[in-house]
Amino acid sequence: MAEAKQLSGAGLRGQVAGKTALSTVGVSGSGLTYRGYDVKDLADNCTFEEVAHLILKGELPNQQELDAYKAKLKGLRALPQALKDVLERIPADAHPMDVMRTGCSMLGNLETEESFDQQQDATDRMLALFPGMINYWYNFSHKGKRIEVETDADSIAEQFLWTLHGEKPTELHTRVMHASLVLYAEHEFNASTFTARVCASTLSDMHSCITGAIGSLRGPLHGGANEAAMELIQKMENPDHAEATLMGMLERKEKIMGFGHAIYRESDPRNAIIKGWSEKLSKEASNPALYDISVRCEAVMWREKKLFCNADFFHASAYNFMGIPTKLFTPIFVCSRLTGWAAHVMEQRSDNRIIRPSAEYVGVEFRVVPPISVR
Amino acid sequence: MAEAKQLSGAGLRGQVAGKTALSTVGVSGSGLTYRGYDVKDLADNCTFEEVAHLILKGELPNQQELDAYKAKLKGLRALPQALKDVLERIPADAHPMDVMRTGCSMLGNLETEESFDQQQDATDRMLALFPGMINYWYNFSHKGKRIEVETDADSIAEQFLWTLHGEKPTELHTRVMHASLVLYAEHEFNASTFTARVCASTLSDMHSCITGAIGSLRGPLHGGANEAAMELIQKMENPDHAEATLMGMLERKEKIMGFGHAIYRESDPRNAIIKGWSEKLSKEASNPALYDISVRCEAVMWREKKLFCNADFFHASAYNFMGIPTKLFTPIFVCSRLTGWAAHVMEQRSDNRIIRPSAEYVGVEFRVVPPISVR
Ligand SMILES: CC(C)(COP(=O)(O)OP(=O)(O)OC[C@H]1O[C@@H](n2cnc3c(N)ncnc32)[C@H](O)[C@@H]1OP(=O)(O)O)[C@@H](O)C(=O)NCCC(=O)NCCS
Ligand SMILES: CC(C)(COP(=O)(O)OP(=O)(O)OC[C@H]1O[C@@H](n2cnc3c(N)ncnc32)[C@H](O)[C@@H]1OP(=O)(O)O)[C@@H](O)C(=O)NCCC(=O)NCCS
Repeated sequence: MAEAKQLSGAGLRGQVAGKTALSTVGVSGSGLTYRGYDVKDLADNCTFEEVAHLILKGELPNQQELDAYKAKLKGLRALPQALKDVLERIPADAHPMDVMRTGCSMLGNLETEESFDQQQDATDRMLALFPGMINYWYNFSHKGKRIEVETDADSIAEQFLWTLHGEKPTELHTRVMHASLVLYAEHEFNASTFTARVCASTLSDMHSCITGAIGSLRGPLHGGANEAAMELIQKMENPDHAEATLMGMLERKEKIMGFGHAIYRESDPRNAIIKGWSEKLSKEASNPALYDISVRCEAVMWREKKLFCNADFFHASAYNFMGIPTKLFTPIFVCSRLTGWAAHVMEQRSDNRIIRPSAEYVGVEFRVVPPISVR
Repeated sequence: MAEAKQLSGAGLRGQVAGKTALSTVGVSGSGLTYRGYDVKDLADNCTFEEVAHLILKGELPNQQELDAYKAKLKGLRALPQALKDVLERIPADAHPMDVMRTGCSMLGNLETEESFDQQQDATDRMLALFPGMINYWYNFSHKGKRIEVETDADSIAEQFLWTLHGEKPTELHTRVMHASLVLYAEHEFNASTFTARVCASTLSDMHSCITGAIGSLRGPLHGGANEAAMELIQKMENPDHAEATLMGMLERKEKIMGFGHAIYRESDPRNAIIKGWSEKLSKEASNPALYDISVRCEAVMWREKKLFCNADFFHASAYNFMGIPTKLFTPIFVCSRLTGWAAHVMEQRSDNRIIRPSAEYVGVEFRVVPPISVR
């Protein structure tokens, strides 16, 4: 035990930091389950709202519960005027994750969670509002358009694409968005979720926890990876060029975003699912080569380094095929992972002790303050 | 080892989550050092700018370095117009920590840290700007006044009081503010700092890290304690009433804010220092009884429960004596702790691995998704 700790100590890797009933990651080496269900089973058979209900309330909804939940969410899409005012003051060259972080934080001023009784309502409000929020900013700052966020979209998946593009998306696109949102919804004690739990452990409010989590997800080692993967594959002209590019990067010991994982060792169970959807989308896309390029990247990385695609890699091509601007990739991740974050906050609150680890001191020895004249 | 883990597992208490050269907490049972210097030595002999320089850059400045640093900070106080616009849209009944969190996040949109080379500048900007930012919002929302934040104040301590009250503070008040800011500046892996480090470990930007830390500090188990302590002692009419109140609370097993600590076991070394200043301030205050009441609380809690005052308890009376509204107590903590947070972010970046612990699974067993019709 002590040995394992020594070996894997950095980044708390392999150390148990708490309990959860929400998901298992890599328990069998490669699996991912949400409340006992395999993520593939959920992605194939459920909409995102069903999975959000599962994660947040413990069980998959029946038809009546699902209808009621969707109706509730649909009624919560409007953006408060003060939030619109704030979004309109964020420049077009801002990082969209900074926009999400600021929008979430601003909402916390306008609709503060005053007591933990309100935690489900506060979460539902964010689930309903976030897709329109980011697309309101995007359309305003990039196209000068003030969009209507109270659309007729039937789901969060549809709402995202609708408010982005200004029209009802195709059935295939909506279907892929559901799968994508399901895949990203929950992932145990990853860095952003752990951020939310540390914040929750001080008994802070839901908006603080989610704001903090957004900030962590922004990092290139975490949620930022799908955007970085996109920037990489976009520069590749064809599969052979992709192979040459990667070989050069590996030789220079550069990190290749969208590969590798802190927990999984052999594969990321989410990859096959989004890869399948990316292939389907490529058939009707104007730039189908992106799929073949991605497939070659996967083969090269495995052959050379035994590194496998994580959830982010084929998300890049899939989102691109749906006309989603690269800079909005990580905000979609937020719209989905919000479910996991909020459920972890609720779980932390239900059996809380403030998360306050210790540090190993590696600084200078004790010393006495010298007067400024002799420093 | 495994046993120790079992005993102290919750909240990662006693578990080493990383290395630091910034401070030691309770190494000798009760001490606190910043880069080797005892906190009392620093609070007695240094201004806050000297300590910020120490924490952020590694050494106490000489006179020339201090002058240059103060001049730099003084030049960074102006609020961007877009940030003022945002502050003006936050209602008077918002939680001031939500204002800090949102203001910090908004600043990240306007002055994004694009590369880690900018980390010191981004930090200095926040150090210089935060006092004016919170007081701009406070004066606008509570009194309808748009204040000037580019004052002639010589220091961050003076700047806070000046922008709050609209006039140059007395020497005593400025002196106490320096001590207070020094006491709160750094405290190893406390929950808000740990939040900042987890965020930094994804290689996210400085504003995300600080925004997340503010959200954690907001919690009543952490930074919120000084406000809660104030609300408590404000209801006490005299020392005997204080004693009766506490005895009742203890009997009902209520938590008394401003007492106890996750690491210290016998005393909090910051308490004696701020207690001394509180006593001095009480001599010229209109409500000196608050000090005697606080002293009685300290005696009762120790007698009854061996619980001691942490840094927050005598801060309540000290701040109150200086005419600081209770709701601004925790934002002052932010203006100070920002130094420790930012230094920890820099330290994490300099030797990083993503912080991604594991969880113990306590949920339902594997199951198969049933069709919605049979749920
Ligand atoms: C996810 C990630 C942060 C996990 O970090 P970790 O747990 O510290 O990684 P590991 O300890 O398993 O890495 C083992 C080795 O593989 C290397 N490696 C891991 N991922 C790599 C990648 N994507 N490209 C190149 N090399 C990689 C590491 O540098 C390390 O090499 P070393 O032993 O020579 O230092 C890391 O794989 C990574 O940075 N991936 C790219 C970013 C990404 O896609 N993030 C999204 C995650 S869902
Ligand atoms: C700071 C704090 C969160 C530390 O938490 P912790 O490490 O989990 O606390 P401990 O395990 O040392 O507590 C030991 C016991 O003392 C009790 N205790 C601790 N602080 C107490 C307080 N302020 N009032 C009453 N009881 C207290 C705990 O409830 C616990 O009792 P139990 O064993 O019957 O459950 C905790 O002391 C607290 O909540 N204090 C009040 C909030 C505060 O002032 N925070 C600012 C910290 S700088």
